[in-house]
Amino acid sequence: MNLKIVFYYMGWVLNIEAVLMLLPCVISVIYGDGILKFFLSPMVLCLLIGWITTHKKPKDTVFYAREGFLVVSLTWVMLSFFGALPFWLSGQIPSLTDALFETISGFTTTGASILNDVEALSPSLLMWRSFTHWVGGMGILVFMLAILPLAGGGYNMHLMRAESPGPSVGKMTPKLRTTAKILYIIYLVMTIIQVVLLLAGGMPFFDALATSFGTAGTGGFGIKNSSIAYYDSYYLQGVITVFMILFGVNFNVYYLFLIRKFKEGFLCEEARVYLGIIALSVLCITLNVRGMFPTLFDAFHHTAFQVGSIITTTGFSTVDFNSWPQFSQCILIGLMFIGACAGSTGGGMKISRIVIWVKEAKKEILSLIHPRSIKVLKIEGKAIGDEVVQSANAYFIAYFLIFSVSVLLVSLDNFDFTTTFTAVAATFNNIGPGLGGVGPVSNFSQLSFLSKYVLMFDMLAGRLEIFPMLLLFAPSTWKR
Amino acid sequence: MNLKIVFYYMGWVLNIEAVLMLLPCVISVIYGDGILKFFLSPMVLCLLIGWITTHKKPKDTVFYAREGFLVVSLTWVMLSFFGALPFWLSGQIPSLTDALFETISGFTTTGASILNDVEALSPSLLMWRSFTHWVGGMGILVFMLAILPLAGGGYNMHLMRAESPGPSVGKMTPKLRTTAKILYIIYLVMTIIQVVLLLAGGMPFFDALATSFGTAGTGGFGIKNSSIAYYDSYYLQGVITVFMILFGVNFNVYYLFLIRKFKEGFLCEEARVYLGIIALSVLCITLNVRGMFPTLFDAFHHTAFQVGSIITTTGFSTVDFNSWPQFSQCILIGLMFIGACAGSTGGGMKISRIVIWVKEAKKEILSLIHPRSIKVLKIEGKAIGDEVVQSANAYFIAYFLIFSVSVLLVSLDNFDFTTTFTAVAATFNNIGPGLGGVGPVSNFSQLSFLSKYVLMFDMLAGRLEIFPMLLLFAPSTWKR
Repeated sequence: MNLKIVFYYMGWVLNIEAVLMLLPCVISVIYGDGILKFFLSPMVLCLLIGWITTHKKPKDTVFYAREGFLVVSLTWVMLSFFGALPFWLSGQIPSLTDALFETISGFTTTGASILNDVEALSPSLLMWRSFTHWVGGMGILVFMLAILPLAGGGYNMHLMRAESPGPSVGKMTPKLRTTAKILYIIYLVMTIIQVVLLLAGGMPFFDALATSFGTAGTGGFGIKNSSIAYYDSYYLQGVITVFMILFGVNFNVYYLFLIRKFKEGFLCEEARVYLGIIALSVLCITLNVRGMFPTLFDAFHHTAFQVGSIITTTGFSTVDFNSWPQFSQCILIGLMFIGACAGSTGGGMKISRIVIWVKEAKKEILSLIHPRSIKVLKIEGKAIGDEVVQSANAYFIAYFLIFSVSVLLVSLDNFDFTTTFTAVAATFNNIGPGLGGVGPVSNFSQLSFLSKYVLMFDMLAGRLEIFPMLLLFAPSTWKR
Repeated sequence: MNLKIVFYYMGWVLNIEAVLMLLPCVISVIYGDGILKFFLSPMVLCLLIGWITTHKKPKDTVFYAREGFLVVSLTWVMLSFFGALPFWLSGQIPSLTDALFETISGFTTTGASILNDVEALSPSLLMWRSFTHWVGGMGILVFMLAILPLAGGGYNMHLMRAESPGPSVGKMTPKLRTTAKILYIIYLVMTIIQVVLLLAGGMPFFDALATSFGTAGTGGFGIKNSSIAYYDSYYLQGVITVFMILFGVNFNVYYLFLIRKFKEGFLCEEARVYLGIIALSVLCITLNVRGMFPTLFDAFHHTAFQVGSIITTTGFSTVDFNSWPQFSQCILIGLMFIGACAGSTGGGMKISRIVIWVKEAKKEILSLIHPRSIKVLKIEGKAIGDEVVQSANAYFIAYFLIFSVSVLLVSLDNFDFTTTFTAVAATFNNIGPGLGGVGPVSNFSQLSFLSKYVLMFDMLAGRLEIFPMLLLFAPSTWKR
């Protein structure tokens, strides 16, 4: 294990985190909310540790998949810890556990909150909270790869693989740094377009920025206690609906559009399945909740918002879907697990994995009828290697093991089954609100310390696709 | 597709079913409950159709896996239909759907009931209901293979594979018919021992026989409204606890004991994991429910009963575990999915599949750390072939797809999430009672027609391990 390179990269992330904290500092100065010093002290700390670990470049820059996984998991824990300090130091979230929960929820783009009164937070803290979504959505290490001319070359692929959601990372360009740059440019441009569209609908700049951060990262932290219901406008809620769904699409599609390969873009199998599932879910739920809204359009409007919010694992809400019929709730719970496309900022199991699994099951069943036929799994016309299928299967198994153990530990709090089950489902899939006691109008503050730490682990495992977090507990990771 | 051989085997099963109905006929004569004619008319019908299809043996006796699957799925549907007739014809279950639900629940050893008042049934119907568990537990086709000198030879392996629970059938002896005979002899002897032990504890003969049928098939139909709580005796409930657990052990172990290979028997990995999970669950739940019982022994006694009942997917109950703390309930829900050993009469996913999955996930994670190492999955020291692992994975995927769709369809009834979720979990895993509205003191009668048919499919899919039932819906099954 090349620990030197691990610390080197972690140091750079700390430096970057200090720079990222400049945004809330600016907000703090503008609003004069007196939080500035609680950002400056963690910044100094980050830069100090960052300088110590990065001023001398390690001679041996060779690293492999396991170092990549380790950098990712350790970095995210560290990032969250330092990111939580302003909340805690300012006393606005008095418990360090709660501050950590809120920050992990932010960076992992979960959006599960322990705050009873979001609006009581100072503006700079509110903006930092939403900004963590934006940073976590596309990934801090991908950001680092995009902006820093780090050595490592091909080795850095291990970092990108470990941090990016989905079973395989599509190499857009042969050069990794270019790929990382393109990803961040698309991400930035789309975020800016959303901000502009929200401003055009009369939303204040602060709100438009924070809401767009939450949408782009498919995070879901709102800056109002009533989440997006506060902006009681078909236009604003409609813009957010559309952008939530857009940020759940595989970014490869946008890249294909960018290089004018429109046909390939439109033919992306994953995106088509994703949009198909959204359309079908919206149709079923709209019909099911029709009687609860004054007009059919209202039912459609709120259903589309909720479906977009849940399948992309954003977690914004405009209504309390806890009171919807059980059929609609079950569809929403199903969408929680499915999640968005691989290579997007969304969470969950990812559409491409679902596609692989369904095709694999179909293949196996057909081979029972025709035992001698040999079928090859294909996605978008390309054969899928055995190692991708095997890794998707191992993911599935690990997913259910962690899920089961988490439900068991959270059940010690003795809430009802819906609350227990959806608390885990909503955090592990990085959605935010669940149902019952952790539904869209409630929050996670009433959970015990144990449950909060279990759910923090789940949020990180969900965002980093399980394996990096599991490696932390494998004894052989730590052997030389 | 060799449909002639399919009909030939189905005809023999009908003949056998007519013979099996002699038991309730005897009971009817003894108790004079006036139900005799409602058994005799289906028996005549069975024999008539059976004679038509079996009096001429098909020339072509060659058949493959898909014919095997088809025989099994069609046989079980047909068996349940004719088995349901006495309930319906006698008017004691006025709805044919309900009668079918009850009979499928019986043959699949689920034990989910639509009866509000079990004790109102006539003795012969009660005994038939419990007897279906015994027949379904070890399998009707395995029974046929054991008693009839059918041609087919090696081909019959396909039948046995399709009907026996678990990822692979251990060939005890080179000759299939001998294996089937040994299985049924072990099964019969263990059932008789249980009857004797229950009689020794003062249970009436009728009750001892019906209860032993329910235990041996890990079915769970009781003949009292309060299930096993009626027999308020530590001894009787203790005997049932022990036998539930024994019938959940892989029958290979008993065979090894029978041929005096004690060491191999005790070393069976699956049985050890199974007993380990039981011990751990009993420990955790006993401590958790300690305060709800007068003594620690009482807590242990009822916990052991409930754990044994759920993990073996029997479904008997002595207490209403619906009122237990959420932690205990979550363990029980987890056990519902795990299920008993392969090659036992129990349902669920089977311990050996869980073992395969855990080992596979572990292997994949380790290969992330050491990409060049090549590991082979081993169970009991023997390497597991890729096709077994692949088939277990396909099973897992198909399992969750069917589970999700079922929950969605049942949710249309708009019961709470616990009821909806556990109604599917309890039928698909062939347990019987779930939690909430379908808990141990409730029943399935309040569900809609749609839900009942969905759950009937789930019970059959659960007992026959999914693929045979899915093949019924594959268009290529029906192509020549």
